[in-house]
Amino acid sequence: MLLYDIGNTNIKIYQDGQIKSIKATEDVSFAREKFYYICVNALYHERLKSLDHAVNLAPFIHLDTGYKGLGIDRAIVCKAVPHGVIVDAGSAITVDVMRKGRHMGGFITLGLYSFEQSFATISDALIYETNENIDLDKLPQNTQDALNFATFQAIVGGIDAVRSDLPLIFCGGDGKKLVHFFKEASYHEGLVFEGMKEVIKESGC
Amino acid sequence: MLLYDIGNTNIKIYQDGQIKSIKATEDVSFAREKFYYICVNALYHERLKSLDHAVNLAPFIHLDTGYKGLGIDRAIVCKAVPHGVIVDAGSAITVDVMRKGRHMGGFITLGLYSFEQSFATISDALIYETNENIDLDKLPQNTQDALNFATFQAIVGGIDAVRSDLPLIFCGGDGKKLVHFFKEASYHEGLVFEGMKEVIKESGC
Repeated sequence: MLLYDIGNTNIKIYQDGQIKSIKATEDVSFAREKFYYICVNALYHERLKSLDHAVNLAPFIHLDTGYKGLGIDRAIVCKAVPHGVIVDAGSAITVDVMRKGRHMGGFITLGLYSFEQSFATISDALIYETNENIDLDKLPQNTQDALNFATFQAIVGGIDAVRSDLPLIFCGGDGKKLVHFFKEASYHEGLVFEGMKEVIKESGC
Repeated sequence: MLLYDIGNTNIKIYQDGQIKSIKATEDVSFAREKFYYICVNALYHERLKSLDHAVNLAPFIHLDTGYKGLGIDRAIVCKAVPHGVIVDAGSAITVDVMRKGRHMGGFITLGLYSFEQSFATISDALIYETNENIDLDKLPQNTQDALNFATFQAIVGGIDAVRSDLPLIFCGGDGKKLVHFFKEASYHEGLVFEGMKEVIKESGC
């Protein structure tokens, strides 16, 4: 089975348990064999539509939710985790709560890089390097720690506020930098593909 | 007593219990009578130095702390609150913990406007209006709430994480939008001037 997860910056391709990532440039060539995809990148919409062997999974994603305007990138990872909190950590971080197959709601916070960029915009004195080894139980005693504390406390505290008794699953590039803050949490690089497989299975498309 | 708090955007002036705010433009004219000031705006450093009747309070601020590189704008509000958590909410939000006259540490997080700007930079889909009436006990069910939840949860959760048993005092323009999230918290517009008076009293300058 060949699966494409097409984002604005990268395209991730899954085949036979392997994942590879390529840049989302204009000259990307798609596979000639049948593949399934989700796509949030407007650059490719028309091209993909014109390919008879490319199946857009978006219309087949059915998620039980009262949330208005949930992006397909969020809905698809939720399909992979019927019971748990899913954190997809990129330039934005989405946090979604699934309970017994139902999507209960979620929120969107800034990613690590976005925090860094935003502080730098306010003042040169607030330029720092993200350091995921910050101790959130210790009051910061210098600017670097003060900014890292705020960044990670914002993200970790937000997740803690909605987690309740649920398992916690991270995906996305920065998920690896966040998972160690939590007990009983895991990182799953290919979560989006698990969600895609679930949608294919459910819909028989 | 005439006091000037000179920031990068605004200059706040205290006289006889009244506070007024003017824009920090190049053509500002300072009082001709004696006044005390703190100044973080490089535009005025030389001009103020040349005025014999203007007293820079920065060298007189002595704060018991192990924190490296604490800005004078933070140190001065700490002087006003010997025991408590001080939150100064502007384009950045500083949070400082004072216990029995000693500064225990603190952190710096993004202000409300900085969150808004940063989300907008990531994607047009993440443009929202800050709404301080967001309910942090409820899982968001749409994008506006999802972004407001993340913003306020980040700030409120960060403060909660360091507050412990201490009183909580807000200042800065956005302090008014934050104080209602907390029990036993107050907003004090002129906190910086209380700190300045304390430094004048302590140092006899």
